[in-house]
Amino acid sequence: MKSSAMRDLMAITERPEVISLAGGLPDTSTFPAESLAALLSHMAAADSARALQYAPTDGIAAVRDCIVEVMAAEDTVVDPQDVLVTTGGQQVIDLVCKTFIDPGDVIVAEAPTYPGAVPAFSAYEADVAQIPMDAEGMRIDELETTLDRLEAEGRRPKFVYTVPNFQNPAGVTLSLPRRRRLVEIAHERRLLVLEDNPYGLLRYEGDPLPTLLSLDRGQFVIYLGTFSKILSAGLRLGWAVAPAPVLEKMNMGKQGADLCSSSLSQLFVTTYFAERRWEDYLGELRDLYRVRRDTMLAALAEHFPAETTWTVPQGGLFVWVTLPDYIDTTDLLARALEERNVAFVPGRAAYVDGRGGSSMRLNFSGVTEDDIREGVRRIGEVIREQVDLYGTLTGRQPAPLNESARDAGLADVVELPRRRAAP
Amino acid sequence: MKSSAMRDLMAITERPEVISLAGGLPDTSTFPAESLAALLSHMAAADSARALQYAPTDGIAAVRDCIVEVMAAEDTVVDPQDVLVTTGGQQVIDLVCKTFIDPGDVIVAEAPTYPGAVPAFSAYEADVAQIPMDAEGMRIDELETTLDRLEAEGRRPKFVYTVPNFQNPAGVTLSLPRRRRLVEIAHERRLLVLEDNPYGLLRYEGDPLPTLLSLDRGQFVIYLGTFSKILSAGLRLGWAVAPAPVLEKMNMGKQGADLCSSSLSQLFVTTYFAERRWEDYLGELRDLYRVRRDTMLAALAEHFPAETTWTVPQGGLFVWVTLPDYIDTTDLLARALEERNVAFVPGRAAYVDGRGGSSMRLNFSGVTEDDIREGVRRIGEVIREQVDLYGTLTGRQPAPLNESARDAGLADVVELPRRRAAP
Repeated sequence: MKSSAMRDLMAITERPEVISLAGGLPDTSTFPAESLAALLSHMAAADSARALQYAPTDGIAAVRDCIVEVMAAEDTVVDPQDVLVTTGGQQVIDLVCKTFIDPGDVIVAEAPTYPGAVPAFSAYEADVAQIPMDAEGMRIDELETTLDRLEAEGRRPKFVYTVPNFQNPAGVTLSLPRRRRLVEIAHERRLLVLEDNPYGLLRYEGDPLPTLLSLDRGQFVIYLGTFSKILSAGLRLGWAVAPAPVLEKMNMGKQGADLCSSSLSQLFVTTYFAERRWEDYLGELRDLYRVRRDTMLAALAEHFPAETTWTVPQGGLFVWVTLPDYIDTTDLLARALEERNVAFVPGRAAYVDGRGGSSMRLNFSGVTEDDIREGVRRIGEVIREQVDLYGTLTGRQPAPLNESARDAGLADVVELPRRRAAP
Repeated sequence: MKSSAMRDLMAITERPEVISLAGGLPDTSTFPAESLAALLSHMAAADSARALQYAPTDGIAAVRDCIVEVMAAEDTVVDPQDVLVTTGGQQVIDLVCKTFIDPGDVIVAEAPTYPGAVPAFSAYEADVAQIPMDAEGMRIDELETTLDRLEAEGRRPKFVYTVPNFQNPAGVTLSLPRRRRLVEIAHERRLLVLEDNPYGLLRYEGDPLPTLLSLDRGQFVIYLGTFSKILSAGLRLGWAVAPAPVLEKMNMGKQGADLCSSSLSQLFVTTYFAERRWEDYLGELRDLYRVRRDTMLAALAEHFPAETTWTVPQGGLFVWVTLPDYIDTTDLLARALEERNVAFVPGRAAYVDGRGGSSMRLNFSGVTEDDIREGVRRIGEVIREQVDLYGTLTGRQPAPLNESARDAGLADVVELPRRRAAP
């Protein structure tokens, strides 16, 4: 999907009658207004001149200390000197591209990959090689095959881009053995890895896994973190942790891009970390999103036809659904919006090559339980119409499960759908 | 000067003992803390969930209405549909480059040009052709000569970058006849112009001149505005006004760069415009900066040796000083910082080709009157030492005025320095 279409989609989903499962939005409604007012008021009283002034490009020192604290919660030790405060996590992707990518350079990413990375990669005219995933995340054997092939072609990828935890959009998590192997490969081949980890602290079940950065010890891994999912996306504050020479180049790129990140946002973060227990709020978000995930999974089992499959994420914001391969989700979205006021992200947005046409990304974090149930029900209806139409037109049975799922490159990852109880 | 050196400079100037005339900082200390606290508190109470959430990439609609209001104060009528809210004015430069520049493409800029544009242009590997200025701003005859030469070489510039009002760093203003002619040329040659206008509303004397955008009526001019100098730089909010197809591409670039600008900052702007008379605060800033400009001009006359010249800006934040050409201001800065704890921006930062070596940019907006006087006095001392040293080493008289000024490409623009009264 083109970015302009994505923008139109975002604009449409702002209409109040639309239930949007298309966003990647945190729920910000549970942050008490009076608490926000008090924090902002304290911040302004303490340091209004600084809040209104430019900040250092690196970021305000006290914010980098907060970031070190967040990283510690991910069991990752970081020196504040190795941190660059950025304008959201998205800017890290942009700055890494700006630093390393010339037109035609290769980036290796997952298939599917974060839809928001696609326009960033495109803007720098990168060639993106996408590696299939299964239930343990990126298939490292396929990665090695691709790296060998590229090497044979004399093309050295500039970096491997991965979302190891509760991947956006697929919802799967890179297993520990694969994490270790990925970092080994980075060292063997002297290959940079961009670890995009917005959701690591939003785990609803199972044990946390070490970050690639902690396994690598700051040699080949560039780490992307963000306050968007643990505090607020409206602040537009994220960070990079990177080896000094890389950080230096990214800092120069940031000077050209926006000089510095918002001081107002940065001082809000320091005030928040000083006056509130940030992990308490995170715990509340986890509880909220866990219930919503379960609601979505139950709704999928109830309302989606048997021909569909989906992933069961242990955390994060997304479920990835794969439909029979004769259904095009880009067309389906147009129909879903027009006829039923419901939105999702069509799978093609997560591929650079037009694949993903029968998949969709559904978000459960930013939607109420009622809207999740109703949204899934409505999408289920349009899918069922398409399935029925296909049967009528062709007189054939729908394609079997695994065949239909293969299109999305996630044939091995899908869980058996939880069927409705027999009527 | 390399960006890393610029960063080091910015870091050093944060030391409390240093008087920095190097910044481009507004004075944010006069914005009452209790007023900021009240505004933020109202904003949070009214719409905390939105303040903490992602915003549309275009910007929140109410912010674009505020921008239309600001543009009206510049006598420029703008449709909110043609506005893109950006992360500071700097991001407009970045997005225009991202949209139009491939490595080796030509950008035409003033000589000297905004030092912050240099790393932006460099990041996209643009070739920058710099056009000399005089007291009426960019020399349009020289521009035409350069455009003809480039055309003969088969090289079509992607855009002309200009700061028409109280230029950063030179302090000069593009005259009305030249504005008209520049827009004519843009139409004749179908050439885009990027009008960077952060300071237009900060005029301390003389009559306002029409924006290039208003003369062009939105065909070839891309306009850059910002809240940094009329409200707060810490918000990181600026805007672009551009023809629809350009704006569409910039919007896509922004999605890749940072998704959207800070909602916290955007809602603060709408609250501020609703609850305060923004032009009153602007009037206060004008009064404050006018006095500081006059203080700086008087201090220069008192403390800088007769061999130096400087511009007399009618508005904005900067004075551009040109020293005898045997003085290298990059070396001088190292000495000024080390021996006298005073900073300025060396002229080379405003050129892509190493020129400007005997010039410096001095800021008067973000510095108290006392610090302006003391800072200028200290810089005057190190200059005088260099002048004396030159005389001692060579036994020669210092170079005459115009020769020393020519190096900076501003030989025609400099005003005669106001000499000290005879002792």
